Amino acid sequence: MHNIQLKNGQLQHLLCIEGLSRKIIEDIFARADSFLDLENNNVKKTDLLNGQTICNLFFENSTRTRTTFEIAAKKLSADVINLNVSTSSQSKGESILDTINNLIAMHADMFVIRHNKSGAAHFIANHINKNIKVVNAGDGYHSHPTQGLLDAFTIRHYKKDFKKLKIAIVGDIKHSRVARSEINALSILGVPEIRVIAPQTLMPYGVKDLGVIPFDNLDHGVKDVDVIMMLRLQKERMDNALIPSQEEYFKTYGLTSKRVELANPDCIIMHPGPMNRGVEIESSVADSNKAVILPQVSFGIAIRMAVMSLLMEKK
Amino acid sequence: MHNIQLKNGQLQHLLCIEGLSRKIIEDIFARADSFLDLENNNVKKTDLLNGQTICNLFFENSTRTRTTFEIAAKKLSADVINLNVSTSSQSKGESILDTINNLIAMHADMFVIRHNKSGAAHFIANHINKNIKVVNAGDGYHSHPTQGLLDAFTIRHYKKDFKKLKIAIVGDIKHSRVARSEINALSILGVPEIRVIAPQTLMPYGVKDLGVIPFDNLDHGVKDVDVIMMLRLQKERMDNALIPSQEEYFKTYGLTSKRVELANPDCIIMHPGPMNRGVEIESSVADSNKAVILPQVSFGIAIRMAVMSLLMEKK
Amino acid sequence: MHNIQLKNGQLQHLLCIEGLSRKIIEDIFARADSFLDLENNNVKKTDLLNGQTICNLFFENSTRTRTTFEIAAKKLSADVINLNVSTSSQSKGESILDTINNLIAMHADMFVIRHNKSGAAHFIANHINKNIKVVNAGDGYHSHPTQGLLDAFTIRHYKKDFKKLKIAIVGDIKHSRVARSEINALSILGVPEIRVIAPQTLMPYGVKDLGVIPFDNLDHGVKDVDVIMMLRLQKERMDNALIPSQEEYFKTYGLTSKRVELANPDCIIMHPGPMNRGVEIESSVADSNKAVILPQVSFGIAIRMAVMSLLMEKK
Repeated sequence: MHNIQLKNGQLQHLLCIEGLSRKIIEDIFARADSFLDLENNNVKKTDLLNGQTICNLFFENSTRTRTTFEIAAKKLSADVINLNVSTSSQSKGESILDTINNLIAMHADMFVIRHNKSGAAHFIANHINKNIKVVNAGDGYHSHPTQGLLDAFTIRHYKKDFKKLKIAIVGDIKHSRVARSEINALSILGVPEIRVIAPQTLMPYGVKDLGVIPFDNLDHGVKDVDVIMMLRLQKERMDNALIPSQEEYFKTYGLTSKRVELANPDCIIMHPGPMNRGVEIESSVADSNKAVILPQVSFGIAIRMAVMSLLMEKK
Repeated sequence: MHNIQLKNGQLQHLLCIEGLSRKIIEDIFARADSFLDLENNNVKKTDLLNGQTICNLFFENSTRTRTTFEIAAKKLSADVINLNVSTSSQSKGESILDTINNLIAMHADMFVIRHNKSGAAHFIANHINKNIKVVNAGDGYHSHPTQGLLDAFTIRHYKKDFKKLKIAIVGDIKHSRVARSEINALSILGVPEIRVIAPQTLMPYGVKDLGVIPFDNLDHGVKDVDVIMMLRLQKERMDNALIPSQEEYFKTYGLTSKRVELANPDCIIMHPGPMNRGVEIESSVADSNKAVILPQVSFGIAIRMAVMSLLMEKK
Repeated sequence: MHNIQLKNGQLQHLLCIEGLSRKIIEDIFARADSFLDLENNNVKKTDLLNGQTICNLFFENSTRTRTTFEIAAKKLSADVINLNVSTSSQSKGESILDTINNLIAMHADMFVIRHNKSGAAHFIANHINKNIKVVNAGDGYHSHPTQGLLDAFTIRHYKKDFKKLKIAIVGDIKHSRVARSEINALSILGVPEIRVIAPQTLMPYGVKDLGVIPFDNLDHGVKDVDVIMMLRLQKERMDNALIPSQEEYFKTYGLTSKRVELANPDCIIMHPGPMNRGVEIESSVADSNKAVILPQVSFGIAIRMAVMSLLMEKK
């Protein structure tokens, strides 16, 4: 399913992390580095995509993710069109591909796609003109590749060498496209030990096939790790009967300062957002100096600028 | 009603096709040609409208049409403000003209107006400062002039000489502002034979006064034509009792590949979108090499750039 | 509460009028003057904020106010992100401050905040990184400082000297953040006599502490004034039982041409919009040559450009 994003080893679309080479990921990181203005905690405005039209096509609402892509595109001087498709021509009976083909005919050069069905971005990339670029901004349970990349980029910033790290991903692994993308990215970059920590009901079937070590006890799972990546409960993807009570969940799987002490003393704490303080993470932990949650967001702009500018160069 | 868009033969607004001279339409086409980059199937970005503010004022939702105007305006480097007025200050009791006058006071230079009432764009153009430009992006049953122009422009691209053409417009003629604008544009450009094909319930009263030949049988109507322009059933404008069943409609008025064979062998097939495959058009016909439905959309950007830049020059 | 907007006498945020010096207000006015192109009734496009990202963060819907800030920001060449937060990540349980901190991490440089709770903009300014700028675009009953400034700027344009003016503010004083901001701005600028005219139910408790003269009779209140500033009934902020009938209100507190005759013959008539003709103002008065309601809107763009560009310079 993932091969259409590559052609002669060159990235044509960014649909998922699977199948990316370490070289491609490092190229993206190097490009992101070039946009960063670390001294001012900012990114540089460039005119690399001046004259290009980027279409944020969101079949599932996500203001946060859409905003990161919109800001990244504007920092590259692209023209940005935001389309929330649920309120759009779908109601007049048009198919997704007709919608996409119309936008291509309107001279859209790149699509940033969010959809609640797994595989939607692949489907679209598979059916359109090869010269148009597709970036997957989250498709169902499947993938959220820019989040996986920005998380790895953040770890690289604080930890330098992936080869010595123990990393724990904690929470609703089962419903999380973010977890999948993180695991894939970190594996490709050579992280030797990735742990996933979740109650049985939130652990996906066959998780060991991903090359990770599963834990159902958080205290055991975070022991000596260098990075703790927390996840939100994806209630919108759960059966009501299976949603744990918030108090119960916090007691067993909430990251408290006491639990952080079990990890490596210089560990960092990550979260893709939005956070639910008091549910999966204690408020004081979220605001502690080990937390790099806001830097993740900042690096995310640079990563998206990197992906979009690299793809457009290959046109 | 249509005269206010002209002043000494110069276009002040684009409100409808009626009253436009052949010369004005050809000027718009020539300007559109200048924006086209046919080799790359693209349009050129220019800074012709840098510093100008274009306000997309949509009293009726239409993401598709709004997007075409937004992209066209951005390709001209204008600043674009999108306003969906149903969710706006109308709820605080302000009149349309007060809303418009406020936006003019905010230094809007041009309005692109969509409204479900016929004559809304004329009404607005009639009551505002003469230096502000109005483009009608569809008003009730009345007019959709940029669609009429882009359809004629598309026919010109494929057929060159309007003077020898037989053209059929098929479907819900009665509720279609697009049909009216197409008929007007093609008449001005000298098309000798325009046929309109519809069941009695979807044929407007007094249709012969438009200088067209009505048919209620599709097979007879498409015989030997050079261009077939399909229309969507405008269910949102019909009484529920009068909406035909989709199966029945497709059987009698759907454009099938078999029916296409009755037309001129090098005929082209058009549709203003959004298409309902299996209702007014067979899917294989929509995707056939006779279909120029997506080129219509592409030419539409160039036509809108042409209209907007010509109007602003006259300021 | 208002001091955080100043640091060593320099404006860091614009949260309310209270605490601004006459000097600061005059600096804003001088900057606004520099953007005006009075000859063409326009403002000049500049690139002062090129590369800066301004985030319109509206927790309360107001298309009109959002549009004025969007146009002003684009005239300064900033990148603008519009966020209507009620439809956004709040539904995933994130707090306001987490939302704000995420947007800062995305490299937003300035927030324009609208909120239905008094003090929201102060709260935000108080909790964020000092280098980020906050402009209050209306918070509950409390303040709407750019409206207060643009009203004063409009009066200055037509009346030159604040020191000789009698000004009447008429209508729903109680629920109006606009009235508060107007009173504060005009007091600082030295207006010797400010009258507020309202029925008892719409007059705030302790109004005399503001240094104004209350009237409950409109005929008495507008006698000999130089400026009449009308307000809208803020029904959305009233108990249903207290909303006056529109006919009754117009009879007692509607500004009619007959009542205008009681004022100074060269008085000007203002309204912050949206107007309800036939409720608080007679239609003929709104359209008379004494009305400067649309110039208020135009000056509002220049004032917002001035505030935004001055704040960003101080970064």
